[in-house]
Amino acid sequence: MKRIKKSLMVGAVLGLLALFPSAGEAGVDREKFLKDPGVYGTFAVFQVDEEWWKLDKAAKVAAVSEVKAIFQKHSDALIADTYLLRGLVEKADVLVRIHSLEILTNQNFLIDFMGTALGQHLKNTYTFNGLTKALNYVPGMSEDLKIALKTQTDPGPKPYAIIVPIRKDAEWWNAGQDVRTAMMKEHTEATVPYLKTVKRKLYHASGLDDVDFITYFETAKLDDFNNLIIALEKVKENRHNKQFGAPTLLGTIRPLDEILAILSH
Amino acid sequence: MKRIKKSLMVGAVLGLLALFPSAGEAGVDREKFLKDPGVYGTFAVFQVDEEWWKLDKAAKVAAVSEVKAIFQKHSDALIADTYLLRGLVEKADVLVRIHSLEILTNQNFLIDFMGTALGQHLKNTYTFNGLTKALNYVPGMSEDLKIALKTQTDPGPKPYAIIVPIRKDAEWWNAGQDVRTAMMKEHTEATVPYLKTVKRKLYHASGLDDVDFITYFETAKLDDFNNLIIALEKVKENRHNKQFGAPTLLGTIRPLDEILAILSH
Amino acid sequence: MKRIKKSLMVGAVLGLLALFPSAGEAGVDREKFLKDPGVYGTFAVFQVDEEWWKLDKAAKVAAVSEVKAIFQKHSDALIADTYLLRGLVEKADVLVRIHSLEILTNQNFLIDFMGTALGQHLKNTYTFNGLTKALNYVPGMSEDLKIALKTQTDPGPKPYAIIVPIRKDAEWWNAGQDVRTAMMKEHTEATVPYLKTVKRKLYHASGLDDVDFITYFETAKLDDFNNLIIALEKVKENRHNKQFGAPTLLGTIRPLDEILAILSH
Amino acid sequence: MKRIKKSLMVGAVLGLLALFPSAGEAGVDREKFLKDPGVYGTFAVFQVDEEWWKLDKAAKVAAVSEVKAIFQKHSDALIADTYLLRGLVEKADVLVRIHSLEILTNQNFLIDFMGTALGQHLKNTYTFNGLTKALNYVPGMSEDLKIALKTQTDPGPKPYAIIVPIRKDAEWWNAGQDVRTAMMKEHTEATVPYLKTVKRKLYHASGLDDVDFITYFETAKLDDFNNLIIALEKVKENRHNKQFGAPTLLGTIRPLDEILAILSH
Amino acid sequence: MKRIKKSLMVGAVLGLLALFPSAGEAGVDREKFLKDPGVYGTFAVFQVDEEWWKLDKAAKVAAVSEVKAIFQKHSDALIADTYLLRGLVEKADVLVRIHSLEILTNQNFLIDFMGTALGQHLKNTYTFNGLTKALNYVPGMSEDLKIALKTQTDPGPKPYAIIVPIRKDAEWWNAGQDVRTAMMKEHTEATVPYLKTVKRKLYHASGLDDVDFITYFETAKLDDFNNLIIALEKVKENRHNKQFGAPTLLGTIRPLDEILAILSH
Repeated sequence: MKRIKKSLMVGAVLGLLALFPSAGEAGVDREKFLKDPGVYGTFAVFQVDEEWWKLDKAAKVAAVSEVKAIFQKHSDALIADTYLLRGLVEKADVLVRIHSLEILTNQNFLIDFMGTALGQHLKNTYTFNGLTKALNYVPGMSEDLKIALKTQTDPGPKPYAIIVPIRKDAEWWNAGQDVRTAMMKEHTEATVPYLKTVKRKLYHASGLDDVDFITYFETAKLDDFNNLIIALEKVKENRHNKQFGAPTLLGTIRPLDEILAILSH
Repeated sequence: MKRIKKSLMVGAVLGLLALFPSAGEAGVDREKFLKDPGVYGTFAVFQVDEEWWKLDKAAKVAAVSEVKAIFQKHSDALIADTYLLRGLVEKADVLVRIHSLEILTNQNFLIDFMGTALGQHLKNTYTFNGLTKALNYVPGMSEDLKIALKTQTDPGPKPYAIIVPIRKDAEWWNAGQDVRTAMMKEHTEATVPYLKTVKRKLYHASGLDDVDFITYFETAKLDDFNNLIIALEKVKENRHNKQFGAPTLLGTIRPLDEILAILSH
Repeated sequence: MKRIKKSLMVGAVLGLLALFPSAGEAGVDREKFLKDPGVYGTFAVFQVDEEWWKLDKAAKVAAVSEVKAIFQKHSDALIADTYLLRGLVEKADVLVRIHSLEILTNQNFLIDFMGTALGQHLKNTYTFNGLTKALNYVPGMSEDLKIALKTQTDPGPKPYAIIVPIRKDAEWWNAGQDVRTAMMKEHTEATVPYLKTVKRKLYHASGLDDVDFITYFETAKLDDFNNLIIALEKVKENRHNKQFGAPTLLGTIRPLDEILAILSH
Repeated sequence: MKRIKKSLMVGAVLGLLALFPSAGEAGVDREKFLKDPGVYGTFAVFQVDEEWWKLDKAAKVAAVSEVKAIFQKHSDALIADTYLLRGLVEKADVLVRIHSLEILTNQNFLIDFMGTALGQHLKNTYTFNGLTKALNYVPGMSEDLKIALKTQTDPGPKPYAIIVPIRKDAEWWNAGQDVRTAMMKEHTEATVPYLKTVKRKLYHASGLDDVDFITYFETAKLDDFNNLIIALEKVKENRHNKQFGAPTLLGTIRPLDEILAILSH
Repeated sequence: MKRIKKSLMVGAVLGLLALFPSAGEAGVDREKFLKDPGVYGTFAVFQVDEEWWKLDKAAKVAAVSEVKAIFQKHSDALIADTYLLRGLVEKADVLVRIHSLEILTNQNFLIDFMGTALGQHLKNTYTFNGLTKALNYVPGMSEDLKIALKTQTDPGPKPYAIIVPIRKDAEWWNAGQDVRTAMMKEHTEATVPYLKTVKRKLYHASGLDDVDFITYFETAKLDDFNNLIIALEKVKENRHNKQFGAPTLLGTIRPLDEILAILSH
């Protein structure tokens, strides 16, 4: 937990970076939190209630400052990325994705956030909790496939993010490792054509939530993403998805400041 | 994105056309947006809350003007069609269908719309996002069937619109292309008798929403539409519809002005 | 649409009849609307909100008059029957069943009704839309069965109405006509013992709603009705009911005046 | 319907008895209503809204008197037993079980009850309607089993009541009478060890509600009841329970006065 | 019931202990209630409503005292542990787990708690009721396994608690005892690697709620817990879980005082 006891100055810099997730990902810890196994991710979705809009300008401006301060306060222990779902998903306006080394850290941030004047007007419509793990190469993968999987997504902004929670059926989990491996290989091959335009990240959620996996995607090309999902629907593994989406959360990656400006306009 | 940077004047004309969707579809871009592949469609359904009705006449009139201005403002980047569901679908009063070249464009319009004085009294009960694609002729179709499919729907007003979201099961997606093709041919043949009275449009939604397809229909003859759906229930493909409707959105196509007049009466 | 352009005087008489559905069904058009194929039925269920009860007596009395005027205004284009569900179905107080030649006509009535001072306090918890069709004798029916089906229900008041929406599974629709016919014959035979005490009416809803059929029943003997449903559960067709009820709407047939008196007491 | 036209005096006495259901069941008609076939039972569950608690003491006291008067008023036509679910079932505070000879009688009572000042603060979260029928001995039962079934439950208070609505699948209803009989015999044998500590009552609900049966239990020993349900889960019939519970309503039997005291404290 | 009639002084001490569940579990009765069979556990989940946050500081402080007094008042009849779910589970802020010898005792505590000024702002989103039973060794377990099962979890704080309600399918309950035993043995073996880091407790719920079991876990290592659940998903028994979670309740164990401080900040 030493990582958390950094100087406030470093924390402040980190915090600013956290506020602009799509603008660089330069901070070392941010990189680490997004790459390392053993990091806990919490996805919290909020819907603004009707009362919020009735507040006067001054109250909204004060509320916005308070939220920024809370993000700042926690910025040396976690990274918090913000997304706007409003207009694209019913009953959802804002998504905050939090990464830290303990779910307790995520919870304490959310308690502070939900306790702000704005937070008291936010209805928490969905929350998903997961955990990153070291990626295992599926045995039997060809060298070509392994090389392909090292493909970096194209640089440049990826304005869209999609979160798809998944629950596997008992048959999947009960299948022998070899059967599961074969299905995962088929799955992996189906994703190759989209490695350059769709960035992916996986969280394990069994027991921490009502799903087994939280899959997270970033892209600039939603048509490619649509084709990727169709490709995944066509592989055998799809027969074992008891839940796929429900909800599918589609949003745009936007810095906290922009989201707060929209909510307080 | 040049298409979007048109002069305001053209935008204004387009916008006016957008306000009267059933009266001509004359604008070039409107035609293109409705015919082209690669266009993103967002279907947003709203229910008026109880507080709205308590506003006085002046507040309602001001709110109506504000909404019209928002539709106007975005009219050079998207087309927005309006539908009245009130009375025909529970928990739904108004549907806006938006077409543009980027979902971000659709979202920004909806954020503005939901931020108006009226929008703050609208509960967003459903949203569906999809994408148009080039139509592929199913291989093995007879020449007769291909000719039949070129049938134009009869001219004249089609006051009703129906939206049916559909999700296919894993067996459908896992079936070989030939099996799927045979089912699609059977499906297509079943629709032939209704080509003149029921206009159809298809959106692909896998990954953008919790469904695979959004099917959109316009008709003046709901009895023909009922028979079309029964015909589609009788083909094999129906065994693979994990979700068909839920919700089925039935409404009447009405210009924005008429809908706003009803809501502000 | 000439039918709708009747003189106001006839409309007024018809309207009065519509207000007292259980007291005679004497009007020609009422008879026709209830017997003819090609008539659109909309079933709209409402729940009174908590705010309504706080209104003072004068406001309630004014609201009641306004509702009566709306029913009167539309009485030359449609028939509107009223039912009290309060106490018997959760989240439901009142049901209005509307018949006319166009769903647009039903919608316009409901928009007016929902726009009244009372309507603004009604939450529209369920709506079902359907269409009447000519009854086909199932082939292979014995002469005895055909004669039995001509049985009129016993005269006298039938205070209870029950609405059961039904959705068939894909196997039902995909079955050959002969298989379906055999099941419908078995179904029909099971209903014979109840023809005298349970009046039935069928609406086709595929595509107009999330169900295939809306079945409507009137009876004075709910024990007979319970036995009828058990008899229908015992025939093969029941294996193909993907949805049967959900909701089952049980209410008492009451004139509009009585319902309004209860709501404004 | 003569039964209902009793003198007010008898009605008043009956009414008092109805208020204290666990204290004797002495009244002839109460006995009859609880034993006879052809009696309609309505189970109405209510949740107190947030506004109720804000009323001042005087308003609550007046509301309580009004409710008692309504129970009294209807006491010569029906019996109404009261249960407290608060704390044990989410979204449910109070359950009223009503027995009479006509569902209309139950409805009129509930309309009056829901129209009181307290009733206007009660959200009707669940309602179930059913009908009692004569008990048939399942053919093939041994004499021992028949004697066992005549076992009376032990005397003494049974503070707990549980209501479990049940819906059977199509396979159950489609099974031959002999198959169903064999399953019912197995079911009956499983219940024998609990006849002394768990009192049971059955209502038939097909067509009156979205379930086939409402099963009602009273007991002082919830561990015995838990074992009874486990025993019933282990018999073949359980394979045909499409719905079992959902909701399971667990409450304590308390006189109306005690419940009103708790709600108005 | 003598256990309940203790002196108030002992009750007060016990009550204080109950307020600090993670700080020792020193009281004899607390130990017994958590170990003995025949103890009734009620899990009640609450969500703070929007109105609460608008109360002024003084009102909140008074409300907090009132809640503490209620916990104190009941502390000689039950133990009540508190958990914070806020931020980690949507629609849930606080969980109270109550153990006593009668569900009536649990209910009376909850009625008092829900009747406080704070309680009136708490929405009861979930409640689960269960019963502890004597642990049976599954026949056929090896001596090694029996010894392993006696493993104590590592000492030290376990800040996280997870509650997973489970419902088995009819096939499970209908299986012969030997089949079920074999599956339980496989289940038990899968848990061995996690006995040191994950503490478990089982409640039987059939008939008391819509689930068969309430499983309760405490841990400091959520990654171990995630692996434990994955191990359980891989055993055959998982094929018979009709419901597993839905909801999965993940929270942090916190003393009442800390939770009240967070809610009244």
